[in-house]
Amino acid sequence: MHAPTRKGVIEAAERIAAILPPTPLLPVTIGGTACWVKAESLQPIGAFKIRGGWNRLSQLSDEQRARGVVGVSSGNHAQGVAWAAKRLGIHAAIVMPNDAPQVKLANVRALGADIVLYDRPGGEDRDVISARLCEERGATFVHAYGDPWVIEGQGSAGIEAAAQLAQRGVDGPTRFIACCGGGGLSAGLALACPEAEIVPVEPEGWDDVARSLEAGEIVSVGPNPPPTACDALQTPATWPVNFEVLKRRASPGLAVSEAEVRAAQRFAFSELRLVLEPGGAAALAAALAGKAALDSGTVIMLTGGNVDPAAFAAVIAGAD
Amino acid sequence: MHAPTRKGVIEAAERIAAILPPTPLLPVTIGGTACWVKAESLQPIGAFKIRGGWNRLSQLSDEQRARGVVGVSSGNHAQGVAWAAKRLGIHAAIVMPNDAPQVKLANVRALGADIVLYDRPGGEDRDVISARLCEERGATFVHAYGDPWVIEGQGSAGIEAAAQLAQRGVDGPTRFIACCGGGGLSAGLALACPEAEIVPVEPEGWDDVARSLEAGEIVSVGPNPPPTACDALQTPATWPVNFEVLKRRASPGLAVSEAEVRAAQRFAFSELRLVLEPGGAAALAAALAGKAALDSGTVIMLTGGNVDPAAFAAVIAGAD
Repeated sequence: MHAPTRKGVIEAAERIAAILPPTPLLPVTIGGTACWVKAESLQPIGAFKIRGGWNRLSQLSDEQRARGVVGVSSGNHAQGVAWAAKRLGIHAAIVMPNDAPQVKLANVRALGADIVLYDRPGGEDRDVISARLCEERGATFVHAYGDPWVIEGQGSAGIEAAAQLAQRGVDGPTRFIACCGGGGLSAGLALACPEAEIVPVEPEGWDDVARSLEAGEIVSVGPNPPPTACDALQTPATWPVNFEVLKRRASPGLAVSEAEVRAAQRFAFSELRLVLEPGGAAALAAALAGKAALDSGTVIMLTGGNVDPAAFAAVIAGAD
Repeated sequence: MHAPTRKGVIEAAERIAAILPPTPLLPVTIGGTACWVKAESLQPIGAFKIRGGWNRLSQLSDEQRARGVVGVSSGNHAQGVAWAAKRLGIHAAIVMPNDAPQVKLANVRALGADIVLYDRPGGEDRDVISARLCEERGATFVHAYGDPWVIEGQGSAGIEAAAQLAQRGVDGPTRFIACCGGGGLSAGLALACPEAEIVPVEPEGWDDVARSLEAGEIVSVGPNPPPTACDALQTPATWPVNFEVLKRRASPGLAVSEAEVRAAQRFAFSELRLVLEPGGAAALAAALAGKAALDSGTVIMLTGGNVDPAAFAAVIAGAD
């Protein structure tokens, strides 16, 4: 595997622009500061993961394509891989936790991928399952974030945002505030826009990237991390390929509470008229809570909108 | 008042492009046919009405501006007028029904407009109230749809959609399916795109435009029209300035049921990750129900997303 590069991100952006229109960059005012949101939740699969999935799968050789791919994901990377696999005629098997949102399971199934379920708390190890699947089929494993092609794909969102700001005569991006699981998007944005500050945002108790940045080396989440509604951001540790980029570029990482995430979902509903899943609202939560600095070139990434109706209804009808 | 023209729509589109980015044109597949939605719900006020409001108020003379404006609206036209008034430093008074969605009342208030409430079923006539306000202040009345500048402003959405389709190499717009209250948007789109079919969609029992098109003359909704969640589409009759355009251009109008509207709100939530108010989902409802023809150049207008959280929660958590 190569180290991801800015050149790779620019090439990924070209590949992605050939099949997907840019996602909207929308103005928003938070605490009196006008800045921007990039609505990756409006991708066809409802998440930015379509970028990395397409960039990885479209680069496979004919032989690799014939043997298929395997992924592990709570649902958004799964949909990204499944979407690209369907379009390219590649077989995809996705290992998903059995507590994944129903909407994500249904969407992956609808895209024609095979789903192999595992029991998230304490069941069979997902890495063992995926390794076995790869061995059985000679399939290519597509990691959700620890993969240079995936990182370069996600970074294409930064190339788009820079072009969109330039069209409007705005200097920037000065800063990306990004929902962060394993750090694939954050690393991609860092490569895409060398002048921008990168602010990864994780759920409280799942802030392994923030703690890794502080420690100067990769550290995992602690034992028994708290429950979180941000299923998309439940990653135990970042990977070296991500950390190599982030340790030189990212600001201190931020952590947001579950209540701050719900407040951000409500803000997106009422002020932006956008549906965000909890994990897709974490960066907005940090901005609304006053935890992240904002300026006219700041771009807040809204990373996903795949959420079960009952869960979303409870959040927007609630007040805490 | 002048008759609205295509030239007027093109000039309006230039005025609006100077202050607002185009709303996204997003791909959607319905019943196997790939077509488009134009997400006017992503305007800063959450509705296309910002177009007509801006086009009307920005054309007022200095003397007119000094005397202020008056509007009548259940909330989206109110926000459009209030947004433009705030930006131009014009006083705005809006006559609103006391059963308007709370979110619309709050948004109009937040934009600094004065709200004068009236009792929708059987209270004081809103036209009497607004006429009195205009007389007291010498203010300009801004009609929600029966106004050539407003019609031309709404039509700017069609100019944008045509440019967006051209960018993607698609022939069209071949057809606009548009939520229809008084017919301001439908008339504007008809002028914007002379080659496109115009399909106005109204709630059942409020389909005065459809019946007017059938009758060849303006007819009102019947006595005691049924209750509808589509507050934005509760107009008793279209106006001559709208009907003059529509009678030569619009297809037979369509009517959708309350259940079809709710189904469309759920589709927008789960498939498009967009928040739509009932009245903003009527055109999509007609498409999903198989009532409207679709092709690769069809643009479905998603006209608004201002909905109270409890009402939206009940719809998406429901099944009917």
